[in-house]
Amino acid sequence: MAALHLAFALALFTGHAAGVNNGLARTPQMGWNNWNALGCDVSESLLLDTSKKLVDSGLRDVGYNYVVLDDCWSRGRDEEGFLEEDLEKFPSGMSAVAEELHRQGLLFGMYSSAGEMTCARYAGSLDWEENDAKSFAGWGVDYLKYDNCYHMGRFGTPKLSFDRYKVMWDALNSTGRPILYSLCNWGEDYSHTWGMSIANSWRMSGDIYDSFSRPDDLCSCIDASSPFCIAPGTHCSVLNIINKVAPYVDRGQPGGWNDLDMLEVGNGGMTDEEYKAHFSLWAALKSPLLMGNDLRSLSAASLTILNNPAVIAISQDPVGHSVYRVRRELNVAKDKYGVGEIQVWSGGLSGGDQVVLLLNAAGEDARISASLEEIFLHDGPEGSAPQINEEWEVFDLWGNRMDNALAQKILDADEKDVEKLWKQANWYNSTEISYKEGLKKRDERLMGKKVGKINAGGSLTAKVKRHSVEMFRLRSVGHGGKRKVHAKEEL
Amino acid sequence: MAALHLAFALALFTGHAAGVNNGLARTPQMGWNNWNALGCDVSESLLLDTSKKLVDSGLRDVGYNYVVLDDCWSRGRDEEGFLEEDLEKFPSGMSAVAEELHRQGLLFGMYSSAGEMTCARYAGSLDWEENDAKSFAGWGVDYLKYDNCYHMGRFGTPKLSFDRYKVMWDALNSTGRPILYSLCNWGEDYSHTWGMSIANSWRMSGDIYDSFSRPDDLCSCIDASSPFCIAPGTHCSVLNIINKVAPYVDRGQPGGWNDLDMLEVGNGGMTDEEYKAHFSLWAALKSPLLMGNDLRSLSAASLTILNNPAVIAISQDPVGHSVYRVRRELNVAKDKYGVGEIQVWSGGLSGGDQVVLLLNAAGEDARISASLEEIFLHDGPEGSAPQINEEWEVFDLWGNRMDNALAQKILDADEKDVEKLWKQANWYNSTEISYKEGLKKRDERLMGKKVGKINAGGSLTAKVKRHSVEMFRLRSVGHGGKRKVHAKEEL
Amino acid sequence: MAALHLAFALALFTGHAAGVNNGLARTPQMGWNNWNALGCDVSESLLLDTSKKLVDSGLRDVGYNYVVLDDCWSRGRDEEGFLEEDLEKFPSGMSAVAEELHRQGLLFGMYSSAGEMTCARYAGSLDWEENDAKSFAGWGVDYLKYDNCYHMGRFGTPKLSFDRYKVMWDALNSTGRPILYSLCNWGEDYSHTWGMSIANSWRMSGDIYDSFSRPDDLCSCIDASSPFCIAPGTHCSVLNIINKVAPYVDRGQPGGWNDLDMLEVGNGGMTDEEYKAHFSLWAALKSPLLMGNDLRSLSAASLTILNNPAVIAISQDPVGHSVYRVRRELNVAKDKYGVGEIQVWSGGLSGGDQVVLLLNAAGEDARISASLEEIFLHDGPEGSAPQINEEWEVFDLWGNRMDNALAQKILDADEKDVEKLWKQANWYNSTEISYKEGLKKRDERLMGKKVGKINAGGSLTAKVKRHSVEMFRLRSVGHGGKRKVHAKEEL
Amino acid sequence: MAALHLAFALALFTGHAAGVNNGLARTPQMGWNNWNALGCDVSESLLLDTSKKLVDSGLRDVGYNYVVLDDCWSRGRDEEGFLEEDLEKFPSGMSAVAEELHRQGLLFGMYSSAGEMTCARYAGSLDWEENDAKSFAGWGVDYLKYDNCYHMGRFGTPKLSFDRYKVMWDALNSTGRPILYSLCNWGEDYSHTWGMSIANSWRMSGDIYDSFSRPDDLCSCIDASSPFCIAPGTHCSVLNIINKVAPYVDRGQPGGWNDLDMLEVGNGGMTDEEYKAHFSLWAALKSPLLMGNDLRSLSAASLTILNNPAVIAISQDPVGHSVYRVRRELNVAKDKYGVGEIQVWSGGLSGGDQVVLLLNAAGEDARISASLEEIFLHDGPEGSAPQINEEWEVFDLWGNRMDNALAQKILDADEKDVEKLWKQANWYNSTEISYKEGLKKRDERLMGKKVGKINAGGSLTAKVKRHSVEMFRLRSVGHGGKRKVHAKEEL
Repeated sequence: MAALHLAFALALFTGHAAGVNNGLARTPQMGWNNWNALGCDVSESLLLDTSKKLVDSGLRDVGYNYVVLDDCWSRGRDEEGFLEEDLEKFPSGMSAVAEELHRQGLLFGMYSSAGEMTCARYAGSLDWEENDAKSFAGWGVDYLKYDNCYHMGRFGTPKLSFDRYKVMWDALNSTGRPILYSLCNWGEDYSHTWGMSIANSWRMSGDIYDSFSRPDDLCSCIDASSPFCIAPGTHCSVLNIINKVAPYVDRGQPGGWNDLDMLEVGNGGMTDEEYKAHFSLWAALKSPLLMGNDLRSLSAASLTILNNPAVIAISQDPVGHSVYRVRRELNVAKDKYGVGEIQVWSGGLSGGDQVVLLLNAAGEDARISASLEEIFLHDGPEGSAPQINEEWEVFDLWGNRMDNALAQKILDADEKDVEKLWKQANWYNSTEISYKEGLKKRDERLMGKKVGKINAGGSLTAKVKRHSVEMFRLRSVGHGGKRKVHAKEEL
Repeated sequence: MAALHLAFALALFTGHAAGVNNGLARTPQMGWNNWNALGCDVSESLLLDTSKKLVDSGLRDVGYNYVVLDDCWSRGRDEEGFLEEDLEKFPSGMSAVAEELHRQGLLFGMYSSAGEMTCARYAGSLDWEENDAKSFAGWGVDYLKYDNCYHMGRFGTPKLSFDRYKVMWDALNSTGRPILYSLCNWGEDYSHTWGMSIANSWRMSGDIYDSFSRPDDLCSCIDASSPFCIAPGTHCSVLNIINKVAPYVDRGQPGGWNDLDMLEVGNGGMTDEEYKAHFSLWAALKSPLLMGNDLRSLSAASLTILNNPAVIAISQDPVGHSVYRVRRELNVAKDKYGVGEIQVWSGGLSGGDQVVLLLNAAGEDARISASLEEIFLHDGPEGSAPQINEEWEVFDLWGNRMDNALAQKILDADEKDVEKLWKQANWYNSTEISYKEGLKKRDERLMGKKVGKINAGGSLTAKVKRHSVEMFRLRSVGHGGKRKVHAKEEL
Repeated sequence: MAALHLAFALALFTGHAAGVNNGLARTPQMGWNNWNALGCDVSESLLLDTSKKLVDSGLRDVGYNYVVLDDCWSRGRDEEGFLEEDLEKFPSGMSAVAEELHRQGLLFGMYSSAGEMTCARYAGSLDWEENDAKSFAGWGVDYLKYDNCYHMGRFGTPKLSFDRYKVMWDALNSTGRPILYSLCNWGEDYSHTWGMSIANSWRMSGDIYDSFSRPDDLCSCIDASSPFCIAPGTHCSVLNIINKVAPYVDRGQPGGWNDLDMLEVGNGGMTDEEYKAHFSLWAALKSPLLMGNDLRSLSAASLTILNNPAVIAISQDPVGHSVYRVRRELNVAKDKYGVGEIQVWSGGLSGGDQVVLLLNAAGEDARISASLEEIFLHDGPEGSAPQINEEWEVFDLWGNRMDNALAQKILDADEKDVEKLWKQANWYNSTEISYKEGLKKRDERLMGKKVGKINAGGSLTAKVKRHSVEMFRLRSVGHGGKRKVHAKEEL
Repeated sequence: MAALHLAFALALFTGHAAGVNNGLARTPQMGWNNWNALGCDVSESLLLDTSKKLVDSGLRDVGYNYVVLDDCWSRGRDEEGFLEEDLEKFPSGMSAVAEELHRQGLLFGMYSSAGEMTCARYAGSLDWEENDAKSFAGWGVDYLKYDNCYHMGRFGTPKLSFDRYKVMWDALNSTGRPILYSLCNWGEDYSHTWGMSIANSWRMSGDIYDSFSRPDDLCSCIDASSPFCIAPGTHCSVLNIINKVAPYVDRGQPGGWNDLDMLEVGNGGMTDEEYKAHFSLWAALKSPLLMGNDLRSLSAASLTILNNPAVIAISQDPVGHSVYRVRRELNVAKDKYGVGEIQVWSGGLSGGDQVVLLLNAAGEDARISASLEEIFLHDGPEGSAPQINEEWEVFDLWGNRMDNALAQKILDADEKDVEKLWKQANWYNSTEISYKEGLKKRDERLMGKKVGKINAGGSLTAKVKRHSVEMFRLRSVGHGGKRKVHAKEEL
């Protein structure tokens, strides 16, 4: 672990001045959190079983290195006002858990709320920030998810929320330990405009649930144009969330990210195509990638979505640009919930590559086409971007998804056999070559499968199944021309 | 009364840490308030006649134990700044009223406003909170409804409203007397996000009026997605109120409840079916149940709605979960006001039971069907909830409504005959067996009438009259599987 | 004038505790203001010519007693920071103007703004309130219209606006002179919820303009359900204004009124029917009635609208209840602006009478009918109000409008003849019998013309021309039953 | 330059009291800014090449005198906390740049942000205002564009934003150097209501992009009636911006202007007709006119749009009234983005002239007609304006656009030839005769081309191509009647 922490320290002192300066989350954080699958059902053994599975399944090695324990872990405060872990659930204590995770090359995340109570009504950290930051640092915690329940009326203007969350940021920093700060105020008070000044990521919506498109009363806010919301809620579909974030996807940047909430991949409420779309969007929109399934019963299908290095390489691309939505069509076939739309998202990658997602959230299969004019709109509208005049190779980022049988074999394998299987598979291992290096070296495993070309002035076209996405990397033949620069980091 | 107060004291010191800590309103409070029927026409004799009727009609014994006096009772402040009762209206004084109510096993509620004046323009408590809390405690008051008129511009952000209402909360607490605090700011400033930190219930809408669906200009806010409102108003229909609360029904919890305002049952503006629907919804949505009719002229029909123990048991279920809306159909027949919708509400009960309401607020009778997938949506969307695979017994909660003739006999009976009638009726008496105990013991009188079964994967279907509701309790055959836990109290 | 001021002083010390306590505006203020017709073109002679016309035309005697000078009167501050009148425009000085107005039995109003500048960019009173209140009191001013331009960012929450306007209220009060305080913040920051605590009236909209229904970009706020507005603006039609105020008409009360802005009657942009409708609505909605035309060229048609005592008696009714809107139909013929609606307004008067307005704001003539159920909705919805079972006499409040020829004769008459004409006309003179007394004595001149009856359970029906209103007083045959009381003053 | 600064000083001490009192921007500022065309690609040579082109192309002489350097120029703060220029980009230093610009009769503008960082993530000025104002003044800077990124949660109420921006205003003023203060908070917190108290212009929208009508998710706010916006954004079309500003165009005044953002003319995303419309609207709406193209590759077509003195004379008219929108038709043919509308804008000019724009933003050519009643609506609605009864001469303001061949010749000419060409062309030179003088003297070059007359009560009609504008000056035959005055400056 020394190596890991050294990396943090270096980042801390040599990193960019942009955004928060703890050196963490230079690309969106990856890991696992228990809430989506298991709610309050937490325990030491859950964490240890999960971390073993992270290692054995190869998920740690494609990048998922944070193990985050959510709500329901404490038994209250001691006489001196420090939080105590529930020793029935965590008999060895939190320090021991942290140590074991670190030993496995993983990082340990915990949870609290900027309120008098947590959402599940355990002791909250509001007005106890210094004590609690000390506890977390003392236990060896590397990550804090910081929630918004029971805030005692301290919200309603950006300044009130900013000030409330900044107290914990300052407390964490003053511990001296680098702790990734994951702000979770559900997007209230325009958190996308100030989150990056005090946090490594900020939730922008109410809680996700395991549905691709179903509207629900408890996720009452659907209108992206309004910053206010009677109740951000808890039943937000994949589609609801991306529609809310569309106007400010550009706020993510190295060090601070729009958080679209934890993944539902593998929890049973969506089809395989829907989970692929969900994962593709989260990666391309630069959300943190926190798996939210029960890894102890991980299926092969889920594994092969979650471990696709070509898609993860989009998430972990060092320039840190989210895709932008360049088209939204509402006049299409609807699904059983009356929902239906087609969307095209596009964004710039390191080295001048471009990623494009053709999203079919309509009620039936569709042929979707996007012109280079649309794809490069952010570099100049109405056909004025220079890229339109270049020729592009097209790579299908799901083209080399791991074979299901292989995945099943890996999941079923003994500890000693599993290593051999990985060797054979020649799967991408980001602990050996970082995504940044891999991309620089043009590692083929990060490219997906080459499927064609687009001529200058041409279009990208694909058949896309209902409730599915097609996702492509475009690479200019030759090196491409000069691009306009909008920020310091792009120079 | 000693016994009653002892119960309070115990709750105070042994209760959960969740929400307010005065130990009161662990289930939604029940009682009576004069405003809806009588407005400013208040007097000592009104309160005493009413409390006698509460006892004789059996309403106290099914749970209505608070007698709440609303606005218009004071004659201003004395020289030392303490409120004085209007001695023409209350010749014996408030202390005597409280004593008499306590003698009858009832509790006494009063009213003031967090403004310079009350809504009817009597002296308000803003900036006089300590004095007034002392007066209330001194008189033996057990409940305070605290209104919002004439607030001197001290609202517009949650913090301003929270701070204004917290002053009275602190003042009440410092009296040492347990006083249920009923916050009435009409849902302004997102009170559903902070009310539970300082109050036992919080109004979430402008005042109700005696109409099931009529929209009115004075209740200008109909859009649940907007937290702001030019004027919450005073003419809000039953339908308007439930549509507003739908996005945040989950905020109620033991100790603090969304208050949908007092009941209109018996005031003459709705049909019997409409009143049944109104009462069913208020119970299932965990609103306080404050009768708002003139009990001195209580009709048999009203009595048999208000005294249904199978419905009240939903309200008083110890887990304290509101139903959630799982379907809303707007494309249905409209009534004479152009209003029409069909809704399905569902929620979890203690012991794994489920309550379902099929609401027909359309312009004509309809057959309404709800699948187990919808009914158990909150436990997992898109068919992922484990309950879908169980078999369920169905109980009609209005199936054993008291016979009208019996009710009339009770209302007409002499004091000495009435007790005999109650014995014969074997009606539920919550002062003998609490709802919690009754539910644990599976008392049949709390179950309604068994009307059928739903197979695994099946649906619940019923014919529902226009402007009416059908309300069912579902009980798993066998004990049902494990459910996901979202909060401390559910463990 | 001693007599007049004595009246103020008495009101000040014996008045109700409700609302502001300066004793003024117990009914909506009446008078004249130059802005609508003349803008910045103000002068001493304008005020004196106007006051002479007020007296000669009989308008003072039907109640218009405030002469209010609007913006553009100052030349800045002197070295000690006191405002100075522009002596080119007001060569005798403000004190002399006030004295002359008082001599004529009139009261003098002036204007400033709670900003660094007035709207026409003269010196404003923000942060100079004490100085300016002293100047106004010293000059003998009886009324202050206090505007909202150039407020230095001090708005956006009710508290900020309340605090800013309260400074001048306190300053005015500390002068010892009773000065009617007319708050003009265009309805920003929910002024209808706090205006009554510090002012005698509060504007609730951007400026009116001389059009009945034309929407204009500069009056950008049309949605009554939203309390926020990018720019309340300056081109608000009569229809726009009443639609905005509908949700909170109930906020007016003796001592403080919703101000719908000054009248446009006589300025040339509306038809006679439109002006009648405009005037009727302003009276029934309890707006202050400030004439906004150039009285020096007053036409007979305008005079006979403005001097109708039967309509003014609605405005000046001592119970001070605004009418409520009980119906709004949008599915009707549109006018050339695409605007069209039909509305019914109804409200309670002293002595149990009721006033009803049938407003045809549609594109063509219409027959409008309103049932007693609708008319008495505020006393109980869905037919539950007791008044429905009474029989009602109907009086057309425009039935005895002054004959045009007589009005012309009065306007043309010599000073000595005019008194004789008034005697002959037997016109109502409120300086001799107040409206309160007149109503108590059931003075026929305040009743309009009897036109029929409504049986119990019946309806009121009338043909109403396009862009016009029919306005009726209903009087119960017999005394009517008991009504529910909602506020102290109604007892 | 002495002469230029003397002019500033005089304005400072003799100017109106209205708005900010630094004497600058008495008409909307004109100049050039690099951002739209070049983003972060800034350097000393860019500024010097550009300033040379400004002089040679004659653009300086028609009024473009500010050269504004946008973001990306600094290398951070020195040890004493003062900003340092990036010496790789600006080897001679900022003082030298300023000196050279001044030598050429130009003024120098720079950029910072009221945040911890600038938008491109260079050091920001929040909490460093005094230091930075000193640096700017010391370098000889004449203009500051002050942005809004990374504001640390200090927004959300007008007061918070006002206070944040006022710090820099006070700092600039305390330097003693007149520095035009260009506030850029994208219209948040109702900046149009307070900008004029502390700034010479205030942005009212997110960033423009080079499209006439294309809606984009990143410019999420399209509803002019809402003052809140989840993200003002960066892809706002010409049409989006004018639709947002329509309700408060009247807020601009001498000394302070609504800023519609920099021009896109010449950047390649719009047609010639679209650029003409864009430029016409910016001039008539009194936006600052900052060219945003790369002057080093200026085309003849762009030059002849930007140098049209008849249109610039509308912008620089001394009364400083914006046009108002008097008609908006949405029921017209749509373009490929589904956008389509027709609008008529009209406004008063010095000397009683009127300017009218017929805007065809529909999908096909149209004949547009505007009656004098509409044109003079602001002087009285519904036909009550006196101007309707006058006769008007009509001048086409694009009628004398410079010939393309001549423009090309000028752009191609040697330095010595260019002066001769200008002489021949007899083009308007505002450094010799100011627009104010020219208008007073009725210089023909400011009038466009006479194309007809409108009789009293008549209409103005023109064929207008799709995505284009026709723009006319109307001059009353005879001198016209008296107009109503609304503000001090109009007297």
